[in-house]
Amino acid sequence: MSFSLKPYHAPDFTLEKFLNAPDAKLAPAPRDGVAPFDYHAMSIFPEYFKIGGEWLLAEESRMDCCAVCRGGKIHVVEFRNLFEGDLVVCGRTEDCEEGIYMHAFGFEERSGAGDTFAFRQNRSRETAFSRDYDEIYDLLRHERDHGKIVWVLGPAFSFDKDAREAMSALIDNGYAHALLAGNALATHDLEGAWLGTALGQDIYTQQSVHNGHYNHLDLLNRVRYWGDIPTFIEKEHIDNGIIYSCVKNHVPFVLGGSIRDDGPMPCIYGNVYDAQNAMRDQLRDATTVICMATMLHSIATGNMTPSYRVMKDGTVRQVYFYCVDISEFVVNKLADRGSLSAKGIVTNVQDFAVNLRKGLGL
Amino acid sequence: MSFSLKPYHAPDFTLEKFLNAPDAKLAPAPRDGVAPFDYHAMSIFPEYFKIGGEWLLAEESRMDCCAVCRGGKIHVVEFRNLFEGDLVVCGRTEDCEEGIYMHAFGFEERSGAGDTFAFRQNRSRETAFSRDYDEIYDLLRHERDHGKIVWVLGPAFSFDKDAREAMSALIDNGYAHALLAGNALATHDLEGAWLGTALGQDIYTQQSVHNGHYNHLDLLNRVRYWGDIPTFIEKEHIDNGIIYSCVKNHVPFVLGGSIRDDGPMPCIYGNVYDAQNAMRDQLRDATTVICMATMLHSIATGNMTPSYRVMKDGTVRQVYFYCVDISEFVVNKLADRGSLSAKGIVTNVQDFAVNLRKGLGL
Amino acid sequence: MSFSLKPYHAPDFTLEKFLNAPDAKLAPAPRDGVAPFDYHAMSIFPEYFKIGGEWLLAEESRMDCCAVCRGGKIHVVEFRNLFEGDLVVCGRTEDCEEGIYMHAFGFEERSGAGDTFAFRQNRSRETAFSRDYDEIYDLLRHERDHGKIVWVLGPAFSFDKDAREAMSALIDNGYAHALLAGNALATHDLEGAWLGTALGQDIYTQQSVHNGHYNHLDLLNRVRYWGDIPTFIEKEHIDNGIIYSCVKNHVPFVLGGSIRDDGPMPCIYGNVYDAQNAMRDQLRDATTVICMATMLHSIATGNMTPSYRVMKDGTVRQVYFYCVDISEFVVNKLADRGSLSAKGIVTNVQDFAVNLRKGLGL
Amino acid sequence: MSFSLKPYHAPDFTLEKFLNAPDAKLAPAPRDGVAPFDYHAMSIFPEYFKIGGEWLLAEESRMDCCAVCRGGKIHVVEFRNLFEGDLVVCGRTEDCEEGIYMHAFGFEERSGAGDTFAFRQNRSRETAFSRDYDEIYDLLRHERDHGKIVWVLGPAFSFDKDAREAMSALIDNGYAHALLAGNALATHDLEGAWLGTALGQDIYTQQSVHNGHYNHLDLLNRVRYWGDIPTFIEKEHIDNGIIYSCVKNHVPFVLGGSIRDDGPMPCIYGNVYDAQNAMRDQLRDATTVICMATMLHSIATGNMTPSYRVMKDGTVRQVYFYCVDISEFVVNKLADRGSLSAKGIVTNVQDFAVNLRKGLGL
Repeated sequence: MSFSLKPYHAPDFTLEKFLNAPDAKLAPAPRDGVAPFDYHAMSIFPEYFKIGGEWLLAEESRMDCCAVCRGGKIHVVEFRNLFEGDLVVCGRTEDCEEGIYMHAFGFEERSGAGDTFAFRQNRSRETAFSRDYDEIYDLLRHERDHGKIVWVLGPAFSFDKDAREAMSALIDNGYAHALLAGNALATHDLEGAWLGTALGQDIYTQQSVHNGHYNHLDLLNRVRYWGDIPTFIEKEHIDNGIIYSCVKNHVPFVLGGSIRDDGPMPCIYGNVYDAQNAMRDQLRDATTVICMATMLHSIATGNMTPSYRVMKDGTVRQVYFYCVDISEFVVNKLADRGSLSAKGIVTNVQDFAVNLRKGLGL
Repeated sequence: MSFSLKPYHAPDFTLEKFLNAPDAKLAPAPRDGVAPFDYHAMSIFPEYFKIGGEWLLAEESRMDCCAVCRGGKIHVVEFRNLFEGDLVVCGRTEDCEEGIYMHAFGFEERSGAGDTFAFRQNRSRETAFSRDYDEIYDLLRHERDHGKIVWVLGPAFSFDKDAREAMSALIDNGYAHALLAGNALATHDLEGAWLGTALGQDIYTQQSVHNGHYNHLDLLNRVRYWGDIPTFIEKEHIDNGIIYSCVKNHVPFVLGGSIRDDGPMPCIYGNVYDAQNAMRDQLRDATTVICMATMLHSIATGNMTPSYRVMKDGTVRQVYFYCVDISEFVVNKLADRGSLSAKGIVTNVQDFAVNLRKGLGL
Repeated sequence: MSFSLKPYHAPDFTLEKFLNAPDAKLAPAPRDGVAPFDYHAMSIFPEYFKIGGEWLLAEESRMDCCAVCRGGKIHVVEFRNLFEGDLVVCGRTEDCEEGIYMHAFGFEERSGAGDTFAFRQNRSRETAFSRDYDEIYDLLRHERDHGKIVWVLGPAFSFDKDAREAMSALIDNGYAHALLAGNALATHDLEGAWLGTALGQDIYTQQSVHNGHYNHLDLLNRVRYWGDIPTFIEKEHIDNGIIYSCVKNHVPFVLGGSIRDDGPMPCIYGNVYDAQNAMRDQLRDATTVICMATMLHSIATGNMTPSYRVMKDGTVRQVYFYCVDISEFVVNKLADRGSLSAKGIVTNVQDFAVNLRKGLGL
Repeated sequence: MSFSLKPYHAPDFTLEKFLNAPDAKLAPAPRDGVAPFDYHAMSIFPEYFKIGGEWLLAEESRMDCCAVCRGGKIHVVEFRNLFEGDLVVCGRTEDCEEGIYMHAFGFEERSGAGDTFAFRQNRSRETAFSRDYDEIYDLLRHERDHGKIVWVLGPAFSFDKDAREAMSALIDNGYAHALLAGNALATHDLEGAWLGTALGQDIYTQQSVHNGHYNHLDLLNRVRYWGDIPTFIEKEHIDNGIIYSCVKNHVPFVLGGSIRDDGPMPCIYGNVYDAQNAMRDQLRDATTVICMATMLHSIATGNMTPSYRVMKDGTVRQVYFYCVDISEFVVNKLADRGSLSAKGIVTNVQDFAVNLRKGLGL
């Protein structure tokens, strides 16, 4: 099976409803960080706004944010980043009534009606995942050279030797273009690289080493001593791990802070809204996003990731979004929160990563 | 790494406590299926009973059952299988006080004391499982030719194409000597083999087929029409799947009934205590047991599986017991119920099976 | 809020599709326990069959079973209970095409179309359950005197003092008309009544008592010694607990066997298909079913419980079905298996039972 | 049952090991935010340091932080808050060898050895929680007037009407002295107070209202418009909810930011380390901490909460710490991370809160 992108079917703007639609209403933000009360909130889907008689596509969208018209273009702006006077699109209909059109099915062939009964519509541990794996292998091979693959990793991912090695192999072989994570992932991954443990437990033998509860603190203190991660890696002769592979291969990583952090790492974003900005900067041109074993980062990333991307040549393509977690609750939560196009895989991420490595022949 | 069995250190019967111990007390069962009130209940560990001055090992033990002395040998008998007058060992101490000795550490080197603190002592999704996998690969290679590997499978195991194929490959290559399961596993596996679905959903594409909610019922009706599974396989030209591989390779399987069964399959044990007897018959000489994705069958099998086996030459060897499930609750429940030597692996069994196949090079 | 049953809207048989429909096709079962290959399988909804020009309602339905015409009436029969020659309804359409009509919306007002987006459509730990509780209180008050309330209990339900007392209070006050459970529920409930423990742990203080792992075995042995539960209760002066309350109030209970049983209890159904028959006998006239903390029994009961009941006066009323479990997986599994009208409540059943008791003022 | 604090048994400093112990080694922090490499890390237990021949107790401890000697007192300082030159206690033994003594059992009577077997040692959904509830009722009644009760709330807590009302009642009646939460809890609680929904779903009827996915955004925009929560409450005539009760009763609340935040609320701590400082300021004199339905905040709070508190009169008392969550994984994770004295309750927090309200007669 070889991968090909689904074509995007743009709306047919010659239809009556588009021709007859009024221009979208624009109203100024009453003050910094505040939208007019009847602002329009963005979805994950392509949305078009009629401005001066033209239907403009919001190019870099983000769920639950405002559409601001600046210089004849639609910018999608978080509430906190609005400036007083910004012209914000208003209106809460999505089928041209107010000059706003949401295009939810641009990548789909509409399917026929199904049976009255169909078992097993939700994804659970009992879903057959073989095809998802096969699709992901094909997708990653395509995206390696023609897309941007962003990984989002929870802290426990680095607790296991094989999973760490699998992730390193993916990075070393070009399958990662950015990494989003938190303080703990970096801490335990570097703890593993430096001391062979995660939270004091050997990442292969599972043995708790003497005074191992010091290990992650020692690691943090040592990185802070050297001042930054690359210097730590150099001075302490680190030669393995996820963060090491990122540094070696110049794969950017964003570490967002949280209230549970020890340390923290020198390069952490202590301000979470700065972290959001940095994460979104990595996601603006992402074409595939894979979240593993983190509810917090998965929801955050889901919020920031639209279902499509406008390429430099103006074509619109789909963005693939996977959420891999051992808990159905986490996997389903994204859908509950509006990240409707997220595909869930219910398993231990250790196995998922090892599967990817083997499936890609690394 | 190559596998070798841990040696068994038998008790040193020359110690005072053994020499001075009284004979174990034997009392007759007051009626069929009832033990004397102070009966001794078996553990999963080797237990020795002083009978006529000799320390006898219970050769085929089973947790929570009675030790019955018949013809100078210790038989471990379920309450329901006791006969009136059976001589049952009585006493509730385990260190020779009453002629009973439980040998809990026969396979272990006693380890030194640990730290006051040690994180992460329980098994969870965050445990590092790399080494467990490596050990299982080695173990299975050894047991293939020198042991008896019994698999215990939950119903959902057959819902996924790759998992089914992995299990078939394990069976075809000699890595399975018996299979314990229920009606649903056989039903959905044969549904997959016959119609390509599980509960009406394609086991590869995940598509719900038209009227697919009939599929498992049609399968059951068809097997019942043919009268037994082998005839169904022959007449309907079945050529794949777990049950097919068992039949082809003469691997015995025991299907225990449950109150949720449709059908059922012709060869099901409708009486659960007959099912227990049949399961235990397969487990008496088992050396490795792997339970996947079934709380009911895992607990049942855990109840029946001692931590050791007495080989034909009289040597005592360890029995390996794994419980693989996506839920920590299930994995930990075995320990809560006394199956202390069970090793838990927390993941989706689909991935576990595929890993085994790849790890064994099949 | 006071409770009233939703009226049942019978189909309008004067419509063309009913008038023009052919008689349902009847074909003989080719042998005992086997249906004709194109049998029609029942749903949980009211279904009507055109027989001799008349539309007959299946009065006591059961999902996934066959409709058999005997003596001018429709009987819903499990595959295993078919006799050779039974006239089985055939056909796999449900809108009169083959003389079969499934009436899925008899109790509902059809609602209008919703928004494109709506968060949180599945039930999870985050669902607001306040209204469900209020509805259950009203429902139980109504059903106490005008319905039949069947409880289905998992084994762990009896592990907690307050939960046991709450369930006893419900039984003592007329809120239980039958109880379906397994060997373990009865064992641990009676262990609690006799020895104050569950699996050896005090049901109030949580302390593990000395040799407590004997307690459930001693209990089983003692009940077996006395021969049946009522005699045990009398001879051992039991005065509390769920089973005690059932016996005292003449509430029938069905204990279905399983392969994990110790003992078992004397009154257990060792054959699971006999157990199914006994369970269905209690469910034929049930009007409210509440399953708590048992996946096995919940699925089994869900399979047997239709969404409606035909009362003695010929009116059709709704059957209420609740599944209470701490795991979303269990709660959602019923819907995955076709028990579409089951309402899930995600919580610890201890708290659920205590809430019911307080909400009903007991 | 009436509540009384367990007495604290201070170490007997007349014992040889204390008398013979050397002074603790102090070394200067090599730079801001960095500890000497052999720093001593604090536990949750009382720890004493021999300084100038005197054993000093660290009065306000925090796990995984450094002990700094300033002005003859021990201050427990996060790595990030160390200043160059701070004198940091060094050493990694805890039994006087290096002038450091950890007193892990100051509040306990050491219990005798238990059985070889004891089932059910971990806390799970099957633990009997009746006594825990009774103890919490007594504890809260005591702490209301003689302690400081800090609540830590996850976002979903405000999704249910009864749970919100229960929490408000607890606050209104003096059972809350501080609240720690995140942006989402405040957002959805105020959404409920203003619009009657949580994420657009009615908090009582569970109905999704039209355009309800705007509700939390409208709420955030409105609060941001008014500039702060108290002004919003006044201007929009809010008269119910958790945050409303806090404002009305002058109960301080700390809202820590996270990368998944929309909005955010005006009073949020965008910098998570400022949030940590503010949280710790509330926890320094906390005597009971109850975390509900939040892994992130529970771990964060667990990290900051020692097992004891030194009162103004110099006496040492126990700090009670509960973690209430529907997932065993979350409840057990605290122990995995070193918060050894945390007591877990496995249930839906909606029911837990309602139980507390009823148990306290509110």
